[in-house]
Amino acid sequence: MTVTRSIGFTDIDFDRNGKQVGFVSFPSSVHDDAWGVIRVPLTVIRNGATPTVILQGGNHGDEYEGPIVLGEIVRGLRPEAVSGRLIVVPAVNLPAVEASRRVSPLDDLNFNRTFPGDPLGSTTQQISHYVSSVLFPLADAFIDLHSGGSSLSIIPSAVLEPCADPALDARNRAAVEAFQAPFKVQIANFGDPRTSTSTAVRAGLITVGTEMAGTGTVTPEAVRICRRGVANVLRHLGVIEGAVERGEGTPGFHTIAGTASYVMASESGIFEPYHELGAPVDKGTPAGRIHFLENPGREPTELVFGAGGVVYGKRHPGRVRPGNCCMVVASPLED
Amino acid sequence: MTVTRSIGFTDIDFDRNGKQVGFVSFPSSVHDDAWGVIRVPLTVIRNGATPTVILQGGNHGDEYEGPIVLGEIVRGLRPEAVSGRLIVVPAVNLPAVEASRRVSPLDDLNFNRTFPGDPLGSTTQQISHYVSSVLFPLADAFIDLHSGGSSLSIIPSAVLEPCADPALDARNRAAVEAFQAPFKVQIANFGDPRTSTSTAVRAGLITVGTEMAGTGTVTPEAVRICRRGVANVLRHLGVIEGAVERGEGTPGFHTIAGTASYVMASESGIFEPYHELGAPVDKGTPAGRIHFLENPGREPTELVFGAGGVVYGKRHPGRVRPGNCCMVVASPLED
Amino acid sequence: MTVTRSIGFTDIDFDRNGKQVGFVSFPSSVHDDAWGVIRVPLTVIRNGATPTVILQGGNHGDEYEGPIVLGEIVRGLRPEAVSGRLIVVPAVNLPAVEASRRVSPLDDLNFNRTFPGDPLGSTTQQISHYVSSVLFPLADAFIDLHSGGSSLSIIPSAVLEPCADPALDARNRAAVEAFQAPFKVQIANFGDPRTSTSTAVRAGLITVGTEMAGTGTVTPEAVRICRRGVANVLRHLGVIEGAVERGEGTPGFHTIAGTASYVMASESGIFEPYHELGAPVDKGTPAGRIHFLENPGREPTELVFGAGGVVYGKRHPGRVRPGNCCMVVASPLED
Amino acid sequence: MTVTRSIGFTDIDFDRNGKQVGFVSFPSSVHDDAWGVIRVPLTVIRNGATPTVILQGGNHGDEYEGPIVLGEIVRGLRPEAVSGRLIVVPAVNLPAVEASRRVSPLDDLNFNRTFPGDPLGSTTQQISHYVSSVLFPLADAFIDLHSGGSSLSIIPSAVLEPCADPALDARNRAAVEAFQAPFKVQIANFGDPRTSTSTAVRAGLITVGTEMAGTGTVTPEAVRICRRGVANVLRHLGVIEGAVERGEGTPGFHTIAGTASYVMASESGIFEPYHELGAPVDKGTPAGRIHFLENPGREPTELVFGAGGVVYGKRHPGRVRPGNCCMVVASPLED
Amino acid sequence: MTVTRSIGFTDIDFDRNGKQVGFVSFPSSVHDDAWGVIRVPLTVIRNGATPTVILQGGNHGDEYEGPIVLGEIVRGLRPEAVSGRLIVVPAVNLPAVEASRRVSPLDDLNFNRTFPGDPLGSTTQQISHYVSSVLFPLADAFIDLHSGGSSLSIIPSAVLEPCADPALDARNRAAVEAFQAPFKVQIANFGDPRTSTSTAVRAGLITVGTEMAGTGTVTPEAVRICRRGVANVLRHLGVIEGAVERGEGTPGFHTIAGTASYVMASESGIFEPYHELGAPVDKGTPAGRIHFLENPGREPTELVFGAGGVVYGKRHPGRVRPGNCCMVVASPLED
Amino acid sequence: MTVTRSIGFTDIDFDRNGKQVGFVSFPSSVHDDAWGVIRVPLTVIRNGATPTVILQGGNHGDEYEGPIVLGEIVRGLRPEAVSGRLIVVPAVNLPAVEASRRVSPLDDLNFNRTFPGDPLGSTTQQISHYVSSVLFPLADAFIDLHSGGSSLSIIPSAVLEPCADPALDARNRAAVEAFQAPFKVQIANFGDPRTSTSTAVRAGLITVGTEMAGTGTVTPEAVRICRRGVANVLRHLGVIEGAVERGEGTPGFHTIAGTASYVMASESGIFEPYHELGAPVDKGTPAGRIHFLENPGREPTELVFGAGGVVYGKRHPGRVRPGNCCMVVASPLED
Ligand SMILES: [Ca+2]
Ligand SMILES: [Ca+2]
Ligand SMILES: [Ca+2]
Ligand SMILES: [Ca+2]
Ligand SMILES: [Ca+2]
Ligand SMILES: [Ca+2]
Repeated sequence: MTVTRSIGFTDIDFDRNGKQVGFVSFPSSVHDDAWGVIRVPLTVIRNGATPTVILQGGNHGDEYEGPIVLGEIVRGLRPEAVSGRLIVVPAVNLPAVEASRRVSPLDDLNFNRTFPGDPLGSTTQQISHYVSSVLFPLADAFIDLHSGGSSLSIIPSAVLEPCADPALDARNRAAVEAFQAPFKVQIANFGDPRTSTSTAVRAGLITVGTEMAGTGTVTPEAVRICRRGVANVLRHLGVIEGAVERGEGTPGFHTIAGTASYVMASESGIFEPYHELGAPVDKGTPAGRIHFLENPGREPTELVFGAGGVVYGKRHPGRVRPGNCCMVVASPLED
Repeated sequence: MTVTRSIGFTDIDFDRNGKQVGFVSFPSSVHDDAWGVIRVPLTVIRNGATPTVILQGGNHGDEYEGPIVLGEIVRGLRPEAVSGRLIVVPAVNLPAVEASRRVSPLDDLNFNRTFPGDPLGSTTQQISHYVSSVLFPLADAFIDLHSGGSSLSIIPSAVLEPCADPALDARNRAAVEAFQAPFKVQIANFGDPRTSTSTAVRAGLITVGTEMAGTGTVTPEAVRICRRGVANVLRHLGVIEGAVERGEGTPGFHTIAGTASYVMASESGIFEPYHELGAPVDKGTPAGRIHFLENPGREPTELVFGAGGVVYGKRHPGRVRPGNCCMVVASPLED
Repeated sequence: MTVTRSIGFTDIDFDRNGKQVGFVSFPSSVHDDAWGVIRVPLTVIRNGATPTVILQGGNHGDEYEGPIVLGEIVRGLRPEAVSGRLIVVPAVNLPAVEASRRVSPLDDLNFNRTFPGDPLGSTTQQISHYVSSVLFPLADAFIDLHSGGSSLSIIPSAVLEPCADPALDARNRAAVEAFQAPFKVQIANFGDPRTSTSTAVRAGLITVGTEMAGTGTVTPEAVRICRRGVANVLRHLGVIEGAVERGEGTPGFHTIAGTASYVMASESGIFEPYHELGAPVDKGTPAGRIHFLENPGREPTELVFGAGGVVYGKRHPGRVRPGNCCMVVASPLED
Repeated sequence: MTVTRSIGFTDIDFDRNGKQVGFVSFPSSVHDDAWGVIRVPLTVIRNGATPTVILQGGNHGDEYEGPIVLGEIVRGLRPEAVSGRLIVVPAVNLPAVEASRRVSPLDDLNFNRTFPGDPLGSTTQQISHYVSSVLFPLADAFIDLHSGGSSLSIIPSAVLEPCADPALDARNRAAVEAFQAPFKVQIANFGDPRTSTSTAVRAGLITVGTEMAGTGTVTPEAVRICRRGVANVLRHLGVIEGAVERGEGTPGFHTIAGTASYVMASESGIFEPYHELGAPVDKGTPAGRIHFLENPGREPTELVFGAGGVVYGKRHPGRVRPGNCCMVVASPLED
Repeated sequence: MTVTRSIGFTDIDFDRNGKQVGFVSFPSSVHDDAWGVIRVPLTVIRNGATPTVILQGGNHGDEYEGPIVLGEIVRGLRPEAVSGRLIVVPAVNLPAVEASRRVSPLDDLNFNRTFPGDPLGSTTQQISHYVSSVLFPLADAFIDLHSGGSSLSIIPSAVLEPCADPALDARNRAAVEAFQAPFKVQIANFGDPRTSTSTAVRAGLITVGTEMAGTGTVTPEAVRICRRGVANVLRHLGVIEGAVERGEGTPGFHTIAGTASYVMASESGIFEPYHELGAPVDKGTPAGRIHFLENPGREPTELVFGAGGVVYGKRHPGRVRPGNCCMVVASPLED
Repeated sequence: MTVTRSIGFTDIDFDRNGKQVGFVSFPSSVHDDAWGVIRVPLTVIRNGATPTVILQGGNHGDEYEGPIVLGEIVRGLRPEAVSGRLIVVPAVNLPAVEASRRVSPLDDLNFNRTFPGDPLGSTTQQISHYVSSVLFPLADAFIDLHSGGSSLSIIPSAVLEPCADPALDARNRAAVEAFQAPFKVQIANFGDPRTSTSTAVRAGLITVGTEMAGTGTVTPEAVRICRRGVANVLRHLGVIEGAVERGEGTPGFHTIAGTASYVMASESGIFEPYHELGAPVDKGTPAGRIHFLENPGREPTELVFGAGGVVYGKRHPGRVRPGNCCMVVASPLED
């Protein structure tokens, strides 16, 4: 027997004007709650149906600026101030958000590697299926708010998803530009088709991603950038009034060019970076070194940049294991 | 039958000139290693016995600048460049360092709350007993290198332990001053007598503590400050040659005045700070707020400063529970 | 290469008369047992092939009345007393039963959400595949014995699975009636097709479910009700002799009408119910309240019934998290 | 260096009239909170100093009626309605209460086996030291509210601590009587001197314990009994006005006479009790049996009462291991 | 959107002559490493393309002789000494090898039950997909080096995979013979199609498996047998020069004939075997007994051989649970 | 209030002739069993009081030959066959035995590092206190049966505890000799006074220890050696009739001379030993090497013997961390 309809249920009516603050619930039958649900916060602020914009936060549970800014919108934005419809999901991977973990503690899945999801899969797969099968068809645009998460420190940036359709790509670039982040970068996630933004692009939605500062913390500066950026994209899309508010930023688009752009740890130890975010670096020069604290007589091992550019991200936790991403370099995006 | 002698054993001869890089081993009989040991790195660099300075890192296992800088000394400092004796313990709480945890995974103890230790206690207690009963009697001065650790971001600072003896206090202040950190602060740890620095002061040692940037990461800047500071104190004590190298810093000593200087979380949620480190703040003004991401319709709860001063530390992980330290305020130390 | 045959193996011959007490074994290659098996208890008591009735217990590993009563049958029922064939699986989700957990500790799966199973899936999926592909085709009727489990306290009841075929539905109702439980209820599990009873109904088997008292304990009363009920259904089906033994009970069928019948927790805290099982309640009235014990100055939050009826189930553990099922209301089933 | 003063700190002034709702905080330096505290809720409701009564809940973290009723007092009792001083600690073992565990997750200690505590011990020991060294000297009477906890179902009862001083024993009996519980029982905890009530008795305080229904849940009936009982004892002690409200109950005192009063499991399996709470039972008769669900062909093992009396408590979780307490028998207390 | 290409990436060029020691990396986005990879060691030693032989170790992470011997080849074999191409994967299930666990700690999967794998599955499935879709098409022969692992002690043996194609089967037998192990055995793994060797056979590769001594340790003797055997097979295949070096061994092929060849535990306890490896045993005679150490008065339970032959394997850890494989019997393989 | 009496209780009467098979129970109040006990098996076989011999097994929970042989005595030895009194404790650290762990899962303590114990400590300390304060005063001799445990493979041996009293030492040597093990060795455990045998010697008991083969398994040969050895010592002490049965063995006593006799791991990796047990080895020669399987291009690190002698023990699990005991060398004991 095949099931294709989401079993998530909600009291929210997507076709009603006004503000509805509620939840979409997914049945979850576990040891300590046989007949319970996972309640994912869902808010609709509607004043006419077009355009419909989905604002998603909490794709990863340890990235906080997006959920904080979307919570301000949930509590503070009046329907009369809106033209069209906002679907706000500030903590979409709710179990991960409650655990402050990148991945869901329920199934150890990375929500952003589960699209298009599965209506009868584990909870994470059920949520991504709901987003892709119920919300995406309602929408014209999709904003997916990330930060670096516990493991990475990243230049606050608006992120462009690769797009095969030149017309949509142009609209995406304009929306990414409108965010007015300090940095604009295209990220391909090794070409993985299971992310929410790649799925949104394939569904034809105008799509904007972000990376805020990260490291699993909240900073006043990153909240300000995120708050301004979300408002700017909504202004750009005509959902709220007013002109895009300009911010300082590196001109042009960058990209993470390929696997050589990542500096991976080769040993277990403590990584000491030699550079701060934003530093220009050359291929073949040292990126940092790994220390062996349990054996201080052993010489540290140096890591080397496999590509030149600007330091876009760096690992936050001091301890590394082989394969951990220690540094990421961005280079200008060729058109 | 009473045992008072440490059961730690080492091949290192504290009375021999030259450099000896080795370990002190503590028998540890556990499930997967019935007859093994915990090997704590120990190095002696000696050119005459006086003064003897203990350099300790890894008191907490997630604070890396100290162990990194002490590793450079272990590998790079020649005995001929020394006058007196350096006892270097870069990763004193080795099990915690290997786990990158503040506390030891073997007994869940905070090494810095176990002094003077216990020769037949758990491993952490055996190590602190070794430091207090074997190393302290050999020494004239003690430098204990901390960073903020995984949970805190702190202004890089040299730390003064409270001292009842005015003569020793003056020597401690001079040594703390010599470190040339951006900030100088007296920390009393709620008056806890079980820290290594309070025990060192009671043993009559010139004592210097530090707090580097923290957050469980390594930064190039904090490594530079720590490297310069350790060299400066050794110069100040006459162990190595040369003049103290000056650094930029806030003049005078500060202190964490009392329990009102800590802003503690009152709810479970995500803490958004309103201020960066170093900001001047007033008593009674908002320090930040706690968000309830699983329930975005609920208003965040604001936290308020119980004392004025300068923001000396702030919590790093976004998630908080009641009682978590969210902000710490330092105020000028009255003489 | 496609595999569709179960890899479970057994020495039991389903076509032999007499009583065979044994196991069906599923290869399981894990760290501490590379070449072992999971042995699921399986008993056949046969005196002719028709009717064949499957008696299943241990669908969830923390529900004990069914396995206890089926164990009595395994040890005590003589083949001569039987007309037809009993296939008794008292602890079908054996790994969960051994762990006393609702879900299997091997794969964290809820057996009752894995039908029809997968011959090369994880152990839970292999067992459900065996039940649906090997046992169901042998059978005319299926009795699946549940209790409330660790998280729920439920009115002891015989459970009717929804059925699209009116003829089979009538036979199911008669069999459910024959159980003579204190309460009769139709449960749709949010329409989930992956339960054993919904799969049995689709396979055309006469199907009876139960819910005993639950809370992860065993009570003398629930054992008595379950023992009598199983015997009654076997009498009703003609497998054993004698007339159905009448029990006290609420007349007619009830149902859990929809998502509004569940009272879900909205906060983390301790739930205090205002009603006992069986109490009549009205929509919109308070069901109980959630206390914040770590902060006794905070007012508790009241929960409200979304539908009226009779309290059919209530959460057992005091602690709740958002989404936990706190109360369930049953209302009369409309024909 | 010896420390004997508690390091717990609070803003509450025990000598001020009125109601103060706050916390006593214990410094706790752990991996994810280096400079934080454990905040134990503490309320003082004062209208003159005498008598001073300590109301303690949350001794074990999975016993809820006491904390619920004390929370009502914290929020609802006006100082003007009081004669003397109430010190209310509704969740004394706060880490255990937050975890809903009998023992503290911080140090795995049973608070009720740590008295008189240790000012520099682990958190549980610091809290019991605070209660015994700071609160007990302020008080005339002590009420310690327990329920059965996750593992036991118990007849709701007021509990008498054994007392060597006949005068105090008489006052304790009168206070226990005043509680008006369904049952009155003396419990000696195998003579363990480390409980809070035995310590209170040695400190000369009028002492009342309780056991409510337990099983880790909350029932409306147990909340009612506890609410009435606490009010009754306060009336009896003259702290609040009014006459003791009578309740139904078994006359006279019972006791758990000795180790033979406990029925302990002899095997691993599922325990099926043969009796409900309150049933009269004879020595040498069967108490229940242990089933081997993984092997239904094996005969269950019966357990036998080692002493006669009335069934006072029974194990709640179905699964048992050797040594688990399955049944407890109470017999009349000889004077 | 369907993905069929492996997302593993490597700098190694399979078509270049010489020795390349490197890694194939699989993107892995987890909580503590959002943009990292799992680096599986991969070495190519090439001097012409034919024949191509894959040498695989670390299929299970607690089997060490294979990885040790393959490491010697990686470091010590010069390309000039080779005719054709060696693809060496000494630690194919790298996460399991790092954890010294049979199964991967990342997804709890047994690599040898995941073939042909899944390009977008969990890491273990991605690795098996890489082996089957990228490496197998390049190769003529496949050697998969196992030992008994933590749970089994096994006669060191070369293992023949069942093969439906008589011509390939003959080539496999010749290669297995060439290994010159003490024992030669056909193992069918209950006919499971998901092993690497069954997949290799279906892909038409000459396939040799092994089982070394096991028990999760390394023995000098097993390393010698494995080192000689791998060299012998490479000589036999013409990849390296020289004649096969003869070893002592039982003549002819044995097999594990069926489910009766396994002695499974029937109880939880400590298994005492009555026989050593290699002993001839008869069907129906005792294999050993299970002791109940917590209850020494209870008689141990004897286990009986279900088939006769020679003791080929025995369980290593003393503790058993029902279903654990305690003994395995091999009997002569009929042609 | 000071407690010095053990709170363990038992129905066994040490002064009654005959065989009593029972338990000593220690109250243990934990989350899932508030009023339960830990039941340690205890058997007395008595035919007159002198001599009294304590037979202890299960000091470590993963060493099985002792408990197996003592279980045979519990079940099979008739009181009439005894002269004097046997106190048999086959599984003294019962929680560790049930878990098959060296250390107790209840408190993570190594029973053999807790003597003389603590009557109100954790369970392990309560058991050792019972042995030292209740059993030792009743006894003339003490036999403590060990095997190598999960982490070590050891030459089966009778072990001599160092003894300052020459007369007792002579009696101990005679009893150790009587065991007729393949090897006789004095082990000082780094002089630790907290072992059961060192405590027994200080209490004046004739004391014999053993080490059987170990590695966490059971072998027929080790059971035979242990069975014969225990009977031999009982014959030697006159408790049972008959002459000591001679076994093959290395003549004279050996000893583990000092810390140089242990080969400790210096790195994390997989240890490959170069020698089998019993091999003669020279100081300064290689003992084995550590492999880095995740990085096969890295050369293994060799470990070197710090003392010459015979290989007495070797690590069993392949994986090592720095400080793990990889090899132990015994040398002749000088008188
Ligand atoms: Ca992210
Ligand atoms: Ca620190
Ligand atoms: Ca159920
Ligand atoms: Ca309690
Ligand atoms: Ca294997
Ligand atoms: Ca041992």
